[in-house]
Amino acid sequence: MTVIITAFERSPDGGRGLARDTRVRWALEEVGQPYEVRLVSFRAMKQPAHLALHPFGQIPTYEEGDLALFETGAIVLHIAERHAGLLPDDADARARAITWMFAALNTVEPPILELATATLLESDKPWSKERLPLVEDRVRDRLKQLSARLGNADWLDGGFSVGDLMMVSVLLRLRSSGILDEYPNLAALVARGEARPAYKRAFAAQLAVYTASERQAD
Amino acid sequence: MTVIITAFERSPDGGRGLARDTRVRWALEEVGQPYEVRLVSFRAMKQPAHLALHPFGQIPTYEEGDLALFETGAIVLHIAERHAGLLPDDADARARAITWMFAALNTVEPPILELATATLLESDKPWSKERLPLVEDRVRDRLKQLSARLGNADWLDGGFSVGDLMMVSVLLRLRSSGILDEYPNLAALVARGEARPAYKRAFAAQLAVYTASERQAD
Repeated sequence: MTVIITAFERSPDGGRGLARDTRVRWALEEVGQPYEVRLVSFRAMKQPAHLALHPFGQIPTYEEGDLALFETGAIVLHIAERHAGLLPDDADARARAITWMFAALNTVEPPILELATATLLESDKPWSKERLPLVEDRVRDRLKQLSARLGNADWLDGGFSVGDLMMVSVLLRLRSSGILDEYPNLAALVARGEARPAYKRAFAAQLAVYTASERQAD
Repeated sequence: MTVIITAFERSPDGGRGLARDTRVRWALEEVGQPYEVRLVSFRAMKQPAHLALHPFGQIPTYEEGDLALFETGAIVLHIAERHAGLLPDDADARARAITWMFAALNTVEPPILELATATLLESDKPWSKERLPLVEDRVRDRLKQLSARLGNADWLDGGFSVGDLMMVSVLLRLRSSGILDEYPNLAALVARGEARPAYKRAFAAQLAVYTASERQAD
């Protein structure tokens, strides 16, 4: 069955791979599932046709025959459950891998999103400069705990899993802040993720979309 | 196999059911799985024994024989997958229910957490009063979209599922802000959740812990 995902017609991250379609592309590449991409403009994302697919007017979405999903976490878990390669066979190990996926999305990412909000949406506010260190320290609190747990291991729990895919994707958003480099084992975790052939293909694919949009805008 | 979860020895929410163990208690009550609770103090949560169970030093955790999980979303999904009652039988409907669980945790909850941070941790800051409306409006953006999708339906996608359980649990945190009541169909969704016998048992159980801790403190 053909898999169709949506992505930004022109990603606001300038092709750095931080838009959430990269996470889905990466998962699809890891399991070897071909996919098609439908690009949507910012305007189209808020129109009824796209809102019917994604009630919050975002990307990515996932269509496979009659099934339509939104939410990156749900899409990536769906891919991991239906194909080999992203979840261990052992039931307990599988539950732990899924735990790391939730930890990435619901414990590590929220303070990182707050930091993005503070730097992108509130940088012109009078409190911006004084408040930023507070927000950065909330990110550090989480990273310190994550770093302590990871220790010298290559991945979060045994072999590479969907939990690592999601954690690396979340941590990638921190690179430009410099905070990631304060935790060398986490920076190394991210580097191991980026070195995977599947990630490289996913990154190249999203960059190609951005590069094409740039050429069109010229 | 005995299920053991952890909860606050003395919940900072004063027994209002907003601590995350309530979500796990609710799921266990919905599927009829008995459970035991181990209470942990704020101090114990940051000690090595608890950090071995939960790397971020929080509650709840979940133990079942050799399996140890953390992250409320992962725990609730695990319960829903292993027992009947929280996920539809149809594979597509099941994936959509899980989608709503992720939407609750990763799209709706983050701005609600930001609002909690703004009111609890930054209320003494010079920017607090001026910044609060911005944060509240980010919550409204999400709720408006969620309200539009829910429409007149009882639940988010067909019958009650783990997606509704998680969304109601997330929205409950907004009640004291007054924002929930701006969206009558969302307030009604929350009321339907709270009216479920399983929720009532979960709420009563967490309140009993808080009440006992109060007596002890007297």
